[in-house]
Amino acid sequence: MPIHKLRREDLGDYGNILVSEAVPLDDPVPAPFTAHWCVVEPGATSERHMHREIEAFFVTSGRGLVAVDGVESEVEAGDTIYLDPLHDHTIHNPAENTDDLVFVTVYWADDDARAALAEPEPAAAERTAALAFVTPATPNGDLHLGHLAGPYLAADVWVRAARARGVDARFVTGSDDHQTYVEHKAWQLGKPVEETAELYGTRILAALEAVGARPDLFLRPAASAAHGERTAAFFTRLYESGALRREVVPTLYCKRCERHLFEIYVRGLCPHCGAATNGIGCEGCGRPNGCHDLAEPACNVCGGTPVPGTQERVVFPLEDYRHGLADFIGRASMGTHVRTLCERMLAEPLPTISVTHESAWGVPAPVPGLEGQVIWSWFEVASLYSAAAADMAASRGWSANGAEAGLHDGDVRVLQFFGFDNGYFKAILLTALFLAAGEEAPPSTFVTNEFYRLDGRKFSTSANHLVSVLDAVESTSPDLIRYYLCATRPARVETSYSAAELAETVQRELVEGWQGWLHGLGSKLREHFDGAAPDTGLWTEQHRSFESDLRGWCAEAERSLTAECFSPARLVRVLSELVREASELGAAELEWAVVPGRWDMFRTAVALELAAARALAILAAPVMPRFGCMLAEDLGLEQRGPAPAVAYLAPGTPVRLGRPYFEL
Amino acid sequence: MPIHKLRREDLGDYGNILVSEAVPLDDPVPAPFTAHWCVVEPGATSERHMHREIEAFFVTSGRGLVAVDGVESEVEAGDTIYLDPLHDHTIHNPAENTDDLVFVTVYWADDDARAALAEPEPAAAERTAALAFVTPATPNGDLHLGHLAGPYLAADVWVRAARARGVDARFVTGSDDHQTYVEHKAWQLGKPVEETAELYGTRILAALEAVGARPDLFLRPAASAAHGERTAAFFTRLYESGALRREVVPTLYCKRCERHLFEIYVRGLCPHCGAATNGIGCEGCGRPNGCHDLAEPACNVCGGTPVPGTQERVVFPLEDYRHGLADFIGRASMGTHVRTLCERMLAEPLPTISVTHESAWGVPAPVPGLEGQVIWSWFEVASLYSAAAADMAASRGWSANGAEAGLHDGDVRVLQFFGFDNGYFKAILLTALFLAAGEEAPPSTFVTNEFYRLDGRKFSTSANHLVSVLDAVESTSPDLIRYYLCATRPARVETSYSAAELAETVQRELVEGWQGWLHGLGSKLREHFDGAAPDTGLWTEQHRSFESDLRGWCAEAERSLTAECFSPARLVRVLSELVREASELGAAELEWAVVPGRWDMFRTAVALELAAARALAILAAPVMPRFGCMLAEDLGLEQRGPAPAVAYLAPGTPVRLGRPYFEL
Repeated sequence: MPIHKLRREDLGDYGNILVSEAVPLDDPVPAPFTAHWCVVEPGATSERHMHREIEAFFVTSGRGLVAVDGVESEVEAGDTIYLDPLHDHTIHNPAENTDDLVFVTVYWADDDARAALAEPEPAAAERTAALAFVTPATPNGDLHLGHLAGPYLAADVWVRAARARGVDARFVTGSDDHQTYVEHKAWQLGKPVEETAELYGTRILAALEAVGARPDLFLRPAASAAHGERTAAFFTRLYESGALRREVVPTLYCKRCERHLFEIYVRGLCPHCGAATNGIGCEGCGRPNGCHDLAEPACNVCGGTPVPGTQERVVFPLEDYRHGLADFIGRASMGTHVRTLCERMLAEPLPTISVTHESAWGVPAPVPGLEGQVIWSWFEVASLYSAAAADMAASRGWSANGAEAGLHDGDVRVLQFFGFDNGYFKAILLTALFLAAGEEAPPSTFVTNEFYRLDGRKFSTSANHLVSVLDAVESTSPDLIRYYLCATRPARVETSYSAAELAETVQRELVEGWQGWLHGLGSKLREHFDGAAPDTGLWTEQHRSFESDLRGWCAEAERSLTAECFSPARLVRVLSELVREASELGAAELEWAVVPGRWDMFRTAVALELAAARALAILAAPVMPRFGCMLAEDLGLEQRGPAPAVAYLAPGTPVRLGRPYFEL
Repeated sequence: MPIHKLRREDLGDYGNILVSEAVPLDDPVPAPFTAHWCVVEPGATSERHMHREIEAFFVTSGRGLVAVDGVESEVEAGDTIYLDPLHDHTIHNPAENTDDLVFVTVYWADDDARAALAEPEPAAAERTAALAFVTPATPNGDLHLGHLAGPYLAADVWVRAARARGVDARFVTGSDDHQTYVEHKAWQLGKPVEETAELYGTRILAALEAVGARPDLFLRPAASAAHGERTAAFFTRLYESGALRREVVPTLYCKRCERHLFEIYVRGLCPHCGAATNGIGCEGCGRPNGCHDLAEPACNVCGGTPVPGTQERVVFPLEDYRHGLADFIGRASMGTHVRTLCERMLAEPLPTISVTHESAWGVPAPVPGLEGQVIWSWFEVASLYSAAAADMAASRGWSANGAEAGLHDGDVRVLQFFGFDNGYFKAILLTALFLAAGEEAPPSTFVTNEFYRLDGRKFSTSANHLVSVLDAVESTSPDLIRYYLCATRPARVETSYSAAELAETVQRELVEGWQGWLHGLGSKLREHFDGAAPDTGLWTEQHRSFESDLRGWCAEAERSLTAECFSPARLVRVLSELVREASELGAAELEWAVVPGRWDMFRTAVALELAAARALAILAAPVMPRFGCMLAEDLGLEQRGPAPAVAYLAPGTPVRLGRPYFEL
């Protein structure tokens, strides 16, 4: 009978608490579980986590708080806490206690039991209003398919799907006029910077409109005095609160250009990954730099080698928000790539970043003695978000919440759509700014993407390796561009655009598949039902099985339209499966039409096909709005509000399914 | 206040009972349901049916029995019966009653309520033993890919999947030696018929073995004296019971050949659909003919026009089994095409068919005075099935059940796999023979297929438009042939084989998709885990979501391997989706490997990928046994019995994933 004793010296750190090596329970035979002794010292909280094992805590001494899925309960010696698998949990010993909280944890995996109690993932409660923010576009060139396939189309698809569910959802973005990239482009073009920002900002909005992805709010900062004032006020508030401070920072100075190099004005090698990059942020690894720390730096205007310099600027010390950021990142919904970027950054000291720099282009820094400097454009993004949230609150008759930033992820659901290269700015920088402004719940739902390639190579404005959205819509209908971009969206891995593959995919899946089925269904309705929807009659096992499948496809399609599992690629694959099976059902069930007295079987099958067509109209609409609208019209669907995805057409509804839905 | 009165003269026939037109309930506003008065006369039973509407019966007078899903309850005046949607039901007034059973039915559709209570389809209870019968192959040529893509591969896939679930499943078929088609082929070849049957029977079995679809029993009738005796005994029993009788039947007689033309010996136009056909059964519409009723008949040996004749034969009057057949067809599980064929036949008088004909080739008819006639070969099929069932009963230590035929769909589940062109023979003729023999539960699970084409045109042995299985395996591995045939199986509609598409599909789906993912996973395991399976650690929302998906794919894959929803095409599509998502998960989650202290997240993702690979090994094995076996081996899976499809590899299991799994 081996006895294992708990000794302080056997304890090791594990997620902020002290844990023993596994208690040996293997003599004479292994126990079917693992056990540890754990000590939570006063003031300590175990790291929030979840796992597939079932776990029991036996509290042996002390008292504290256990939180499961964020719900806290007081616990004390003698308590047993039984934890279901895959629910996140922490245990906390309040600082005012004097005694350690000690417990034994026992855990084991039981996949059979889990399979038996497998429940659908808890769906995030739907709120009545939502703001979908997309990083404002840099007006230094046209919007290309790489941009569109990333956050812009995704936000539009999500917003359309949310609206169909009855949510007051708004798509907010703008042009990021005051970026140094715009200034640099104007210099290249030999045009005034205002004109450059105006030109490309207008063309970017036109491109979004041309593919049916018109934002509800598209802010043009250079043309908005109110925006400048809001940004300056936001900056001043943070400056006055001490969140921002003046500091002399190291810089790179170009003697020939007489400029401290910032962002686009400098190029070199990323201090983290070694990739070629401009200043501030690296597109490759996503991590920030301070410009002065680039290896092999060069001025991007004259090509000369800059020298080390210093300049007094306003800075924002991210390290001050470490705890808030860590907590936020633990709770926020985001893809693995962004999450790992955040975790890597949190594993090291967080940088102090410059938030003003010398320029005549931008919102002047409202700080005496720093005349000639402007506020870094990411402050404008924060200001845009707050303003949009305040607008929405006002338009819905709500008062803004306590935080003056006004951007509350509470009544309004706030989502951010962005590419991985913006991960640091969105997840760390913007979040820290909102925390600094006193916002308790910064936007914590991120829908991200990786790079989209053109024929296998990175889209590049400078190398002119791109297809602009405005050019694409000249030759291909918006629905088809949207379909193909959704089908190939680089959600988790880089993917590639190919015009030949677009044509082939559309022909096979949409023209031969979807349209072929719908036209055949239309003919059948005209021939056998005078063009009106029949009611279901008598059912066979094939009918029941198809209805059950239809329910499954609709559920999967709807899940792929949620922010947490957002995948328009999966959505269109599920819809193609729905069409394939509905088409086969329709072909096979046509036999009933010739069996005497079996009309009731035949009409059930046709009513099921129409229910499938109805689901297709609703579920495809966020991706292909024109098709969704045409099909809804042809099926006599009037209802525009939220509708259960599986439902039958009202018997007698006139149905017309014959016009071309997809034209290359 | 409109009053509607029930009057006998307003009642009409509806499925064997008397039903009023819908009671008008629309003044001043329409009622949210439909109501009928119904009268069940003594001895009547309503037709078994189900529908999506919820229904309530209010019994107003009389008494009887209501059966829901086959479970009977006594009902009488004053009773209310509430019926859930999509459960089949009948109501019966026993013949010994003197009063009508009268009830009011009220029904309405409520899709929202249905969606809320939507439950998975009740799975057929799994039995411990199963017999999968495939129509014996005609040994008049080689087995080609059209045959294989139909019932043969399907039965092998089903049997392999059932065995993996622990069912003692057996695949039974044979060569149908005594068909006139074999005799005719021998005549064409100028060879003895015994030699022809021997040659092709051997080659057919070799072809099945070459693609890993070796039957557990492959009966060669010409070489089995016992089989002949069993067939004769079965025939005699039916003859002596009066189920078979002698009758002078109309024939077509070829004066030049001095033969009453039968089956292959005559050609003409089908009396039902007008298609060109041989005698007995039409491949086009599936309906039987009597040879003498063919339009534009010609002798298939001399080409001459036959004249009407008569001959005394033994006949089997199918009409005698109308009620048993109708009841059977109402209960049996079958595809729509076969079901509609049966229903069309039942809507007309059923034919009396000849079951002996003049020939020296076959089992002699044991009827004095009819020397020179043989028993029609479908009796041999019935005899084979009974014998195989009796064998299985004996080998499992069961006594055969009451019916001497010995073919009981009780303890042993009996399935029949066949092409639609055999629908009449299997669903009507064989069933009637078993009913005549006193079998209470003839095999009632049918898995059927339509024609498979070669490059868009029908496979044809006579036109030499075919790819024989033995030729195919010379150039392509059995796994890949099986995969492609499963992916394109003509389950409900005709589909087509294309060698170019096979190569392309295999390259894209299997080589780049499945193998690419597995090899990448193998490299990752070698690089990060010393080639051993990690345990899951800490979970993120991506991990939880993937596990939930994996559970869904496994459930869908398993459902597509059941007889009721049998679809190997859907199975391989689901597995490709599993691979696609697992591969993307693996790529995205690799980021955790470089985050300090986050190994527990990384290993969860890799353990999930391995769980997906494990599910793939199990679920793909019925389709690609060699691949399934290799992958199971490489994952260290030892367990051969039934296993939950979602489970984790034991931590520490050595995993090797690097060898070529698919070679074109």
